[in-house]
Amino acid sequence: MSVTVVGSIAYDRVKTPFGEKERMLGGAATHFALAASFFDEVRVVGPVGDDFSDEDMRVLQTRGTSTDDVERVAGGKTFFWHGEYGWDLNSRETHDTQLGVFESFEPKLGEASRASEVLFLANIQPDLQRGVREQCRGARFVALDSMNLWIEIARDSLLRTISEVDCVILNDAELRQLTEKPNLVQAANEIFAMGPRVVVAKQGEYGAALLTRETFFALPAYPLETVVDPTGAGDTFAGGFVGYLAARRGELGDEALRRAMAFGTALASFNVEEFGTERVLRLTADEIAERVDDLARITHFEAAPVELRA
Amino acid sequence: MSVTVVGSIAYDRVKTPFGEKERMLGGAATHFALAASFFDEVRVVGPVGDDFSDEDMRVLQTRGTSTDDVERVAGGKTFFWHGEYGWDLNSRETHDTQLGVFESFEPKLGEASRASEVLFLANIQPDLQRGVREQCRGARFVALDSMNLWIEIARDSLLRTISEVDCVILNDAELRQLTEKPNLVQAANEIFAMGPRVVVAKQGEYGAALLTRETFFALPAYPLETVVDPTGAGDTFAGGFVGYLAARRGELGDEALRRAMAFGTALASFNVEEFGTERVLRLTADEIAERVDDLARITHFEAAPVELRA
Repeated sequence: MSVTVVGSIAYDRVKTPFGEKERMLGGAATHFALAASFFDEVRVVGPVGDDFSDEDMRVLQTRGTSTDDVERVAGGKTFFWHGEYGWDLNSRETHDTQLGVFESFEPKLGEASRASEVLFLANIQPDLQRGVREQCRGARFVALDSMNLWIEIARDSLLRTISEVDCVILNDAELRQLTEKPNLVQAANEIFAMGPRVVVAKQGEYGAALLTRETFFALPAYPLETVVDPTGAGDTFAGGFVGYLAARRGELGDEALRRAMAFGTALASFNVEEFGTERVLRLTADEIAERVDDLARITHFEAAPVELRA
Repeated sequence: MSVTVVGSIAYDRVKTPFGEKERMLGGAATHFALAASFFDEVRVVGPVGDDFSDEDMRVLQTRGTSTDDVERVAGGKTFFWHGEYGWDLNSRETHDTQLGVFESFEPKLGEASRASEVLFLANIQPDLQRGVREQCRGARFVALDSMNLWIEIARDSLLRTISEVDCVILNDAELRQLTEKPNLVQAANEIFAMGPRVVVAKQGEYGAALLTRETFFALPAYPLETVVDPTGAGDTFAGGFVGYLAARRGELGDEALRRAMAFGTALASFNVEEFGTERVLRLTADEIAERVDDLARITHFEAAPVELRA
C-alpha cells in the first residue's frame, strides 16, 4: 500500500522563545511525509519554486518517499511562512505569508499517486482537496485537515469535501467553529452526520482525542520538559496516525485506531523537540517504539474495585 | 482515618447556556465533602451565616460528614457568588462576590478535625491555610488548592504554605502563573523544589495530569455530550482524589495516585452534568465504579510492536 499526501511544501521562518530560524524546510506535506514514511511508502504532491534546493528535495525523499508529483514551477517561489510563538508556545502570530507557487497550484497526480489506497488531504483550499479526492477513486481511507480560514471563506466547499472523506483531523477550536457545537462529542456527531467515520480532535499540549460512532479514546501529549518549536506538530501527528493505518491496510478497528493515535502522538512529540524537521530527520524506529511504550505507561491505570461508603 | 476540609460554604447564583439558578448550595468545602465522603469520613471547617438553611446543613452531612466545625456566625451572611459561563463553558465572568462571614473567617478546628490524618486546604487566603496546617501537625497527607488572586496579592504567604504541604492541586494556568514556567514539567519541578511531592494540574475539559518526581500520569476528562454547570468541578475532583487517598490511608504509591486521579475525574464528570450539587447528591457507588471502568477503557491501548521502515 502507499500513502499519497497533497499539501504545502514550504520554507518557514520561525521565532520561538528558544531562538529563530531564517529559512527551514517546512510545510504540511513535508512534516506529514517524514512521519508517515516510517510506516509505508509515501507519495508527495505539491508545488515548489526555483528556489527549492536539491538538498531539501532529498530530505523529502527520506525513506524512499516519491517526489515524482512534486511540481517545480519555473520562475516561481516556494511557499513562505514567517511566524512567531508566544512564551508558552500556545499562541502564535503570523508575520508574513507569501503563497508563491501555491497561489496557482492545481494538483496533478500521476498514475501511481492516484492509485494509492490511502490519501491525506493536508490543509489546502477545499475545492482543490475535493479535486484530488475525485482523482483517487480507489482510495480505501481518506483523511482531511483544514483551517479556520477555509471554514470562514469556503465553508460550503469544505462541507462538501468533508462529506467525501473517511476521517477529519482538526484542532478542537476548528471543530467547534466548523460545527458551531462547543462540545466535542456533539461536534463529532455533526461530522458523522456528514459522512466521515472517524474524527480526531488535536488538542495541542493536551494531546488528542479520537471519536467514532462507537468509541471514544483520548491520549495526552507526551510530557516534554522543553518544547522548542511546535510548527508542524499537527501534520507530523497526522503522518504518524494516517501512516500507521496505511501500514494496517486501512483497517479501522478500535485497536488499530488507538495505536494510530499513539504513533501520531509519539511522532509529534519528537517534532516539537527541535526546530523544523531537525529532530524527526534523525529519528529512529527504536526511539518511536520506546515513546509509544512510554505513552502506554503514562496513561495506564487499573480500575480495581473499591469499597465506597453509602 | 478521616479527612478534614477547610474552605468556603456558599450560595451560588449561576448562569450557563443551559439555564440559571438563583441560589444553590455551593462552595469548595461543600463540593469537596460530597465527593470525599464516598471514601472516608469527612469533617468540614468553614463559616456560614444566619441565612444558611437547615436543609443545606443536612446536605453537608451526607454520608455522615461532620459539621461540628461549621461555624454559624450570628448576624452574618453566607458567602455568595454570582457568575456566568460563556457558550463553550470554558470562560466565566464573576458578576458579584459577597464575602459575608468569610471576610472575618478564622478557622477553628475542634480536636477531632485537628486529629485527621488527611487535610485538604481548599482555596482560601494562604495565611489561613497555613494556620490550619499548623493546627494539624499529625496529618500524614495535606493537599492544597489556591487561585490567581492569592498568587497575585499574597504570593510570599502562598509559597510558605506550599512548602508545608504534600500535594498541590491547581489548574494549569495557575501553575504557570505561580512558577512563571510555561511548561508543565518545569512548573512541577519548581513546586517539588518547594517541598511538595505531588502536583496535580487540573486542565478543565482536557482532564488532569499528575506529576511526582518519579512519574507522570494524565487522564482525559470523561467525555460528556452535555456539560450543564462546571461550578465546583475542581473541588469535586479534589474530593475524589484526596478522599480516595484517605481511604488508602495516605499511601502515595504510583498505583494509588493513578486510581485517585480516576476517582477524582469520575466524580468531577458527574458534578458538571447538572447544576450545583444536584447530580452528586443522588450519585451511587455503582455509578462511580462504572465510570472509573469507562475511563480505564477509553484510555487503554496496547503498545504492541510494529515493524517500522528504516
